[in-house]
Amino acid sequence: MAEQIHKKIKRFIEKNQLIEQGNELILGVSGGMDSMMLLHYFYTYKEVYQVSLKVAHIHHGIRESADLDAALVEETCRAYHIPFYRHNCNIKALAKQKKCSEEEIGREERYNFFISLLNPGAKIVTAHNMNDQAETMMMRFFRGTDIKGLGGILPKRGQIIRPLLDVTRKEIESYCKVHQVPFRHDETNFMPIYTRNKIRLECTPYIESAINPSFIKVLGEHSQLYREEEDFLEGYTKSLFELVASQQETAIVLDEKLLKSYHPYMQKRLFFMAIEKLTGSLKDFSSKHLESALALMEGQSGKEIHLPKQVTLRKIYDQLILTKEKLSSLSYAIPLSLGTQEIKEAGLVLSLKLVSKEAIHQKSENLYTKYIDYGRIKNGLQIRTRQPEDYISLGAGTKKLKKLFIDEKISKDVRDSLPLIADGDEIIWVIGSRLNTDYYVTQETTKVLEIQMMNER
Amino acid sequence: MAEQIHKKIKRFIEKNQLIEQGNELILGVSGGMDSMMLLHYFYTYKEVYQVSLKVAHIHHGIRESADLDAALVEETCRAYHIPFYRHNCNIKALAKQKKCSEEEIGREERYNFFISLLNPGAKIVTAHNMNDQAETMMMRFFRGTDIKGLGGILPKRGQIIRPLLDVTRKEIESYCKVHQVPFRHDETNFMPIYTRNKIRLECTPYIESAINPSFIKVLGEHSQLYREEEDFLEGYTKSLFELVASQQETAIVLDEKLLKSYHPYMQKRLFFMAIEKLTGSLKDFSSKHLESALALMEGQSGKEIHLPKQVTLRKIYDQLILTKEKLSSLSYAIPLSLGTQEIKEAGLVLSLKLVSKEAIHQKSENLYTKYIDYGRIKNGLQIRTRQPEDYISLGAGTKKLKKLFIDEKISKDVRDSLPLIADGDEIIWVIGSRLNTDYYVTQETTKVLEIQMMNER
Repeated sequence: MAEQIHKKIKRFIEKNQLIEQGNELILGVSGGMDSMMLLHYFYTYKEVYQVSLKVAHIHHGIRESADLDAALVEETCRAYHIPFYRHNCNIKALAKQKKCSEEEIGREERYNFFISLLNPGAKIVTAHNMNDQAETMMMRFFRGTDIKGLGGILPKRGQIIRPLLDVTRKEIESYCKVHQVPFRHDETNFMPIYTRNKIRLECTPYIESAINPSFIKVLGEHSQLYREEEDFLEGYTKSLFELVASQQETAIVLDEKLLKSYHPYMQKRLFFMAIEKLTGSLKDFSSKHLESALALMEGQSGKEIHLPKQVTLRKIYDQLILTKEKLSSLSYAIPLSLGTQEIKEAGLVLSLKLVSKEAIHQKSENLYTKYIDYGRIKNGLQIRTRQPEDYISLGAGTKKLKKLFIDEKISKDVRDSLPLIADGDEIIWVIGSRLNTDYYVTQETTKVLEIQMMNER
Repeated sequence: MAEQIHKKIKRFIEKNQLIEQGNELILGVSGGMDSMMLLHYFYTYKEVYQVSLKVAHIHHGIRESADLDAALVEETCRAYHIPFYRHNCNIKALAKQKKCSEEEIGREERYNFFISLLNPGAKIVTAHNMNDQAETMMMRFFRGTDIKGLGGILPKRGQIIRPLLDVTRKEIESYCKVHQVPFRHDETNFMPIYTRNKIRLECTPYIESAINPSFIKVLGEHSQLYREEEDFLEGYTKSLFELVASQQETAIVLDEKLLKSYHPYMQKRLFFMAIEKLTGSLKDFSSKHLESALALMEGQSGKEIHLPKQVTLRKIYDQLILTKEKLSSLSYAIPLSLGTQEIKEAGLVLSLKLVSKEAIHQKSENLYTKYIDYGRIKNGLQIRTRQPEDYISLGAGTKKLKKLFIDEKISKDVRDSLPLIADGDEIIWVIGSRLNTDYYVTQETTKVLEIQMMNER
């Protein structure tokens, strides 16, 4: 039985390419059944996957029993010789203070804590299982969702992986029984206060008895079908977008004739894609806005409509032009230190690490990972937006940053929001683009700094 | 309020092109709230739509109150001057006898009765509403369904239309109140015996209170999104199928290299399409079979796998060949009479009607509607499969049917199952194809027979 679960998990990990040899796994362990099983599982099979382990535990401060939860996880880690990291926070107080739900705050605190432990090449591992998957799908289905939402919890998102998604809670239960895995009951799980708990405690048993006893498995398996479908549709939409759209300085221009030649469903997806490219998300846009956008195609040249987030859609002859009023862009300047740091203002996570010169050759330098001479830093590192005096050295002498932007045809909008790694007025790295040649690692370098951007923007 | 509902229904009818001017609508009316509202609605607005009305009522024979239901519908029809048709059947007894569920038998009896009343150009109208839609989607979702299934009840299927799909049960209730529409409560609706009743009486109120008070509307609206998506995907798959597949006598051949160049999701849909074309349906085929089909692509030339329904999939070099073992085909010969008749053996509904010669010019003769000289019929009309002595006149003299099939490159499989309208050994019409020239309507014709195939095969 337990051997079967192992095979199932292994197959799921391989199929979704969740783990590579040598990965460091940061397991999120609350002390509940699911996460204690996760801990036992990876402790047992760490040689099979060739990974190293760390455990992250959040002390929620909601319940008195939180101390006992933390103690159980810490003891188990000690017995297993796995490093244990604990973060204390009072979710209740924070939720009150920030006027968010406890669920939201819990998610945020968890995420930030995990990120702070994250080294490059490491993975955060959560214990989400097939029941969580089905519950998520149900909630989305009843609140209204497209096929993407029906895909449910993703097996992999950035550096977060969910290797237990293919395993039901019942299977986890039996694994824990067979292997005598200790765990603690989270009594808040048994109170139908949150929507998710209601679904688990009341809705799921009802559907099992009235409609389909194995609906958890059915939904879990179908989530993959929906994900595959969305994956195809997303890719196909992208390929059409390249044909139908051209991106200009601060506008996206759609070829109306071509757009009209596509299926109405694709027309809508293409509009959504244009809006997403222009504003960064689809928040605040609904099918109501799409309907009016499609209606504009039937209107006369010169007409325009106003959409949320300062987006204007204008019809000029056979072109549909989407523009976004420029918002005063947010400027920031944040000092950087060694370790992993989330830069909310730039929407990215940076990792700074001192490495040996030899290590450079084993790793690949790429668009988002750079190695620089740590000894060259004069004024301390910052991540920030541009300032008037900024300059950069590019082999052939120094250049004003403004000149570089003009030469490289970077649009004004982008210029203001591009995150820069700076040393005083000198720009070391335009993230995702040029690196200052004066900071290159040379024979004289004694200390090497690895700077890595850990998520896509 | 009632005016608003009217606008909503009208918009839905127009958007989905459910009704054309001059249509005869056959309303299915049980006496319950939904269908009595349907009856009142079309009685009130029949001039707006320019339609004529008929009412069909099934006397179920389950409950003692069935007599009262029938009486209410009949009385209302008399008051409205609408023709009333009633069909008696004992669903309970039939279900026992045929060993089916009462739901299934009810559906079948209803369908056959409606069909018997159906003239060409008429529409069967059911009172399915947005609650029925949401309930159907829920049942499918929890039993496991693809995006097609999530599309729910279709606004139009063949000659059946559902103009109330966009209206909730609450809206129907308030319409009935405002217009004092009489209706009878079907007490079986209040017993949680059938899955659908359970969903309505227990599951729906729970989800409304725990997850989303307006989920019925959310699901109803999303059903359209899912239908649009499926419509696009279906069309796109067809266009790829034409590229990747070639249909031969009794096989479908797929170009493996081309197939592999598509997204895995599309590969699966194309396999399903091939199987559907070969066997007529996807019954008995699951994703498990698809997985083994896709795995065969990685195997060596010469390998084969066996799928349900005598389907074999063989890999020969760069081709994947799907064949179906020939089943002894069902032969039949059924006499035809005037009126509408369902031919189960051929899977079609035929309508035979005497019309005036003038009527021909007002209507369009097409692949599925033919006009013949009724006076030329010597031996009586039949619909049947081919027989050895069959012949047909095609202007240039008579021709053996077998010769026609060879000349027109009709595959052997198709030959045996093609439905024919015959007069003795003489074939009058190869349905969907050639018409015997000797039966053409001429100046001498006194009586014209219209033969119409009323559904797609």
